Amino acid sequence: MEKETARIEAFSDAVFAIAVTLLVLELHVPEFNEGKNPAALLHALCAQWPGYVAFIISFFTIFIMWVNHHKLFKQIYKRNTGLMFANGLILFLASLVSFPSSLLSQFFRTPSEQIAVSIYTGMFVLVNIAYNWLWYEACKDNGLLRPGLGAGDIRKIRNDNLYGLPAYLAAFALSFYFPTTALIICLLLWGFWVRSSKKLEIEN
Amino acid sequence: MEKETARIEAFSDAVFAIAVTLLVLELHVPEFNEGKNPAALLHALCAQWPGYVAFIISFFTIFIMWVNHHKLFKQIYKRNTGLMFANGLILFLASLVSFPSSLLSQFFRTPSEQIAVSIYTGMFVLVNIAYNWLWYEACKDNGLLRPGLGAGDIRKIRNDNLYGLPAYLAAFALSFYFPTTALIICLLLWGFWVRSSKKLEIEN
Amino acid sequence: MEKETARIEAFSDAVFAIAVTLLVLELHVPEFNEGKNPAALLHALCAQWPGYVAFIISFFTIFIMWVNHHKLFKQIYKRNTGLMFANGLILFLASLVSFPSSLLSQFFRTPSEQIAVSIYTGMFVLVNIAYNWLWYEACKDNGLLRPGLGAGDIRKIRNDNLYGLPAYLAAFALSFYFPTTALIICLLLWGFWVRSSKKLEIEN
Amino acid sequence: MEKETARIEAFSDAVFAIAVTLLVLELHVPEFNEGKNPAALLHALCAQWPGYVAFIISFFTIFIMWVNHHKLFKQIYKRNTGLMFANGLILFLASLVSFPSSLLSQFFRTPSEQIAVSIYTGMFVLVNIAYNWLWYEACKDNGLLRPGLGAGDIRKIRNDNLYGLPAYLAAFALSFYFPTTALIICLLLWGFWVRSSKKLEIEN
Repeated sequence: MEKETARIEAFSDAVFAIAVTLLVLELHVPEFNEGKNPAALLHALCAQWPGYVAFIISFFTIFIMWVNHHKLFKQIYKRNTGLMFANGLILFLASLVSFPSSLLSQFFRTPSEQIAVSIYTGMFVLVNIAYNWLWYEACKDNGLLRPGLGAGDIRKIRNDNLYGLPAYLAAFALSFYFPTTALIICLLLWGFWVRSSKKLEIEN
Repeated sequence: MEKETARIEAFSDAVFAIAVTLLVLELHVPEFNEGKNPAALLHALCAQWPGYVAFIISFFTIFIMWVNHHKLFKQIYKRNTGLMFANGLILFLASLVSFPSSLLSQFFRTPSEQIAVSIYTGMFVLVNIAYNWLWYEACKDNGLLRPGLGAGDIRKIRNDNLYGLPAYLAAFALSFYFPTTALIICLLLWGFWVRSSKKLEIEN
Repeated sequence: MEKETARIEAFSDAVFAIAVTLLVLELHVPEFNEGKNPAALLHALCAQWPGYVAFIISFFTIFIMWVNHHKLFKQIYKRNTGLMFANGLILFLASLVSFPSSLLSQFFRTPSEQIAVSIYTGMFVLVNIAYNWLWYEACKDNGLLRPGLGAGDIRKIRNDNLYGLPAYLAAFALSFYFPTTALIICLLLWGFWVRSSKKLEIEN
Repeated sequence: MEKETARIEAFSDAVFAIAVTLLVLELHVPEFNEGKNPAALLHALCAQWPGYVAFIISFFTIFIMWVNHHKLFKQIYKRNTGLMFANGLILFLASLVSFPSSLLSQFFRTPSEQIAVSIYTGMFVLVNIAYNWLWYEACKDNGLLRPGLGAGDIRKIRNDNLYGLPAYLAAFALSFYFPTTALIICLLLWGFWVRSSKKLEIEN
């Protein structure tokens, strides 16, 4: 059976790839004059550390989003309009991810960290909803999935995505009072996505 | 029959994907000092709202352009020079879309809104002409289309694109006197493109 | 016979697509305060005209380079190291094209136009050399070309590229004394590339 | 046997392509006023020379990384989670490469050059480790490689990558005392990668 979603995947790959690469533009090479004094240059480079953290967070966030996108689309063979717009929402959020990440790295450990953490966790509530919507659209009309994909696998993928929702909602709610705890939940969830992508792969 | 247009689609996908992703560069993280005062940070974030609106408008505008491009090229199997240059014009306009969108979000509700709305609607007159040109080139030489595509489908796609032209021209003309009305027509037309892409899909 | 060059084409498509799309970043939306006065906004938009010209020139320059790349690679089925580095040089120049184009649009009709025109025409001497090198590498080892491509077609493609070299060299030499004439030669050559891509297509 | 890694390659191609193209944004067209005086324009263009050098170094660094990526993935037919994350690290470093390159071109021949050279060579220690990790993942589970790839070829690729590690580590260590020597080692290693990619191609 022909895979109808090749061009959707190509377009999505390009959006993820650009989103992942653009952040380097936020890293600035210090001015030439600072070269006269090695200590000043080192200082200028170190002062940029929130930018490095944002770069690393954003890169791996988008990369894991791509890995999961890749896993889901390995099971999706046909498309409908709902699927295209659910995917559109995922890409919209992927291209936006660098903004809350920069915000977080800039304002973490400042009096404003609660705002940054709430925006950051709120973002991932939306990301999770978009992935749930995508899988819902793919399953609703059974013909969209890879022929031969078992009901157990379909349920497993759905559950992995669904279980994320209350976790992200909890992180979002906690972020208003305990920003650090909310962030730790987010980090643990990244570990969960890496693990869940691993299991899916072994099964297929 | 082999699809000769694979590389045109790959190139177009990449252009659409980049155009859709670049706008995030317009969103700026507030300076570090504003982090000392959560209220100031919130204010700085909210003051950027035209940028958020431009980001959303541009993203979905280009995304819908891509969805329609995708639908048309599913029916196009061969290429000629005219087709390549009609496609080139579409890509040119897609890569440009962020500019009138930013303009619109920046100057809407200011004394200059008429200029921004006229440029914005004028842009979509050109986009519509480019899609009509593309389909004209694809149909002119019948051999370019997917073998087995019925005359009714060909006419339906042509009409969907053709009907857009007077609507966009009307929006453009109205924009000089009633900018808000012109914008509402544009928004309704987006709804029309989403709907028209849906119908096309069902038929094939 | 399998096409070994698919990934080279995909990578090249992406480079051309990005090069073609990045220039929109050079167009700046005027500041909000200019919105208070429609005449000031119009003036600010018009003052940017060299940016618009650069955008259009760069876009179509890179687009025509892509069209020709696409035509050459339709005939190339295998790769060697020389081909990969000749292609690398083409991509290097494609990603650079926006710089001399901006320079040209900025300084045309100023006392410095000779410098801008010389850099611009010199750039296309290099572009032409890179295309000639690519085709030389593809032909040198006959097995790289599409089986069944006739000697006449091979020669025709080679000649089209070779004839460009003295023309660009002449434009470059003239640019030091008659910049406007040199630019006209460049424009005429764009017409030639569009035409030559057309003929190639009919023959195959 | 079907190649399971097509989408990983497409994503990687896009990341390399964007990384390679973004650097042109660092080249700035001089301000308009400098056009009144050709000598001032020439001077402003020449003063940007570190930017040109960084552009060329970054372009060819990323291009050679892509060429080697392309060669390795021609032998990899299946994927596992380890492979995806090793590839993710390569892409992370590829998207970062423009930063140490700019740093190097900006501060070479200043009192701070040691810092820039150490960061630059340290970067390539990481790049080398990422390639070694990728190949280790591909070989560990033999089923990931192209069926029919001989043990000699597998070992040859592994050794090419492994031999690079002590060389880059030596360059990194030397960079603290003899920055120029460290850079020369890096340049020689680029020559080695070009050569090694050539030999691999002949053998297969």
